[in-house]
Amino acid sequence: MTHSESGLDKKTVVGVDVGGTKISAALVDERGQLLGYQARPTTILSTEATLDSIAELILEILRKEKKRSTDIKGIGLGIPGLVDPDRGIGIASVNLQWENVFVKDEIQKRIGIPCVIENDVKAAALGELRYGESKGIKDLIYLNIGTGVAAAIILNGKIYRGQKDMAGEIGHAVVDINGPICKCGGRGCLEAIISGPSIIKRIQEKIELGQNTSLAKQLSEKIDLTPKEIYEAASAGDIVARETVNEVSRFLANAIQFLALAYDPQRIVLGGGVVYSTPLFFENLMSVIHGLAQESWVFRHLLTPNLIKVTKLGNHIGILGAAALIP
Amino acid sequence: MTHSESGLDKKTVVGVDVGGTKISAALVDERGQLLGYQARPTTILSTEATLDSIAELILEILRKEKKRSTDIKGIGLGIPGLVDPDRGIGIASVNLQWENVFVKDEIQKRIGIPCVIENDVKAAALGELRYGESKGIKDLIYLNIGTGVAAAIILNGKIYRGQKDMAGEIGHAVVDINGPICKCGGRGCLEAIISGPSIIKRIQEKIELGQNTSLAKQLSEKIDLTPKEIYEAASAGDIVARETVNEVSRFLANAIQFLALAYDPQRIVLGGGVVYSTPLFFENLMSVIHGLAQESWVFRHLLTPNLIKVTKLGNHIGILGAAALIP
Repeated sequence: MTHSESGLDKKTVVGVDVGGTKISAALVDERGQLLGYQARPTTILSTEATLDSIAELILEILRKEKKRSTDIKGIGLGIPGLVDPDRGIGIASVNLQWENVFVKDEIQKRIGIPCVIENDVKAAALGELRYGESKGIKDLIYLNIGTGVAAAIILNGKIYRGQKDMAGEIGHAVVDINGPICKCGGRGCLEAIISGPSIIKRIQEKIELGQNTSLAKQLSEKIDLTPKEIYEAASAGDIVARETVNEVSRFLANAIQFLALAYDPQRIVLGGGVVYSTPLFFENLMSVIHGLAQESWVFRHLLTPNLIKVTKLGNHIGILGAAALIP
Repeated sequence: MTHSESGLDKKTVVGVDVGGTKISAALVDERGQLLGYQARPTTILSTEATLDSIAELILEILRKEKKRSTDIKGIGLGIPGLVDPDRGIGIASVNLQWENVFVKDEIQKRIGIPCVIENDVKAAALGELRYGESKGIKDLIYLNIGTGVAAAIILNGKIYRGQKDMAGEIGHAVVDINGPICKCGGRGCLEAIISGPSIIKRIQEKIELGQNTSLAKQLSEKIDLTPKEIYEAASAGDIVARETVNEVSRFLANAIQFLALAYDPQRIVLGGGVVYSTPLFFENLMSVIHGLAQESWVFRHLLTPNLIKVTKLGNHIGILGAAALIP
């Protein structure tokens, strides 16, 4: 069977979303349809083990979907932390516990298909541009709010990296000088307030202080709290949860306003676990943002109706972003 | 006398800094030397009167310096507010009380020399690039802290404007939700805390609340307070002044950190009346910024020794910026 007989013409790519807790991957066609989706927990016993695990996952998908390596145009990998895409090196990742790993070469060696790697948030921004609602947008900010908080900056259709590849690392901007200590050592960083783990920690601290919330029961029953439960409790009228949700919206709204004023982009797209947790997240956030615009004519002038959006790619933005790395 | 005999070879330009209270201008040579500096209060009786006054100032300089219009390569004008440089229109300026003024055409008509106009802060950034310490810098943020607070963004050597020409308008980002009301209507905008008039207002309010400060005497004697007096009082140990200075540094440090993380630029240059008022301004600010870097490894990684600087062009940055508009 030739490539044209297979109907693929090498237009299919593999997208791999390498997360700190989960690795997921799928074949992705031109229209952004996923095929043969697979996920497994991330192995971090050793760098070799992590790489082997990634390669096995890809090979398993190819096998199940009856694809040969010659059917595939390329493999894109979105990787957390600092990444050198040109040399294909994962420079540092706290979550994967690795440093200076030749990810591109190592995966290519194991699979025999050309690979491209990129920081996961930057890749997601490219995924939004290629497969999401933001097709045709030139100046875009993609803001990920999950375990971490970081933005990827797209200017004139290309990733803008800055001098040290740190452009968009606003998760570590201090937004509350009396706020909690961040993993980076700073006090009151945006990430230390609005990331998934930070929201949960905030509720836990309020419970420990004896504040009355329906979430205390869940915690005492060792049921894992997630932002979803907190937002749902807020919806149901839980005052402590509501207060926390309002705090998150307020600090995030200010950060988005600052980004909007700093870049004046065409669009700011939000994605990540916290964003998808419940519709209340975006509703509550936008009510604060509209409040800011109501007060200030400068911000009102900037805030076009479609400036701020949630990605419609949902949890697949990681895989689609990785797929978008293949030209 | 031919151009080459005059030694000018049309390398001399005129830079005009059109401010809300003062218009200043000078001839500027290739090395950024000012010749024939003149200033006069801004006439805002009518748009015509303002334009006439600008033209008269330029003609006076040319006359005194014995230059003919053919000796001059061009006239650059830095103008506050919204500016359309392509069409040469001053779109809106609160301080000049004008709207949709054909500045370029009107001045050209009056003087007979080609004119270029630009927003004053954006022009200043170009001045810093051409005549200041930042020669050769590609990605620069120029942050003006005077009557207003705004940044100009230079990416790859060119002004980055954003979609609505508002990129860098961080003066209207809310940094203190309990802060004072801003001219834009917002509460706790950066400008409402750290601009010259805002600093003075803050001290006045503290005096009205009966707080004990050496500045109360000056105010009661109707001596105009400026940021300079407030910083000097802080240096001399005045506790209320010191507290105000610390507040300014804290909010400005956070804003600079956010800008640095958002853009990861080669350099952030500060200019404007508040910045030049006293050496304590920058000392105090940098001690807060170094404190942030000491705490956070992310910000420490970003904060190179020369990332943040005060322009050495001082008050001349307005004229030099305007001069830099002429290619």
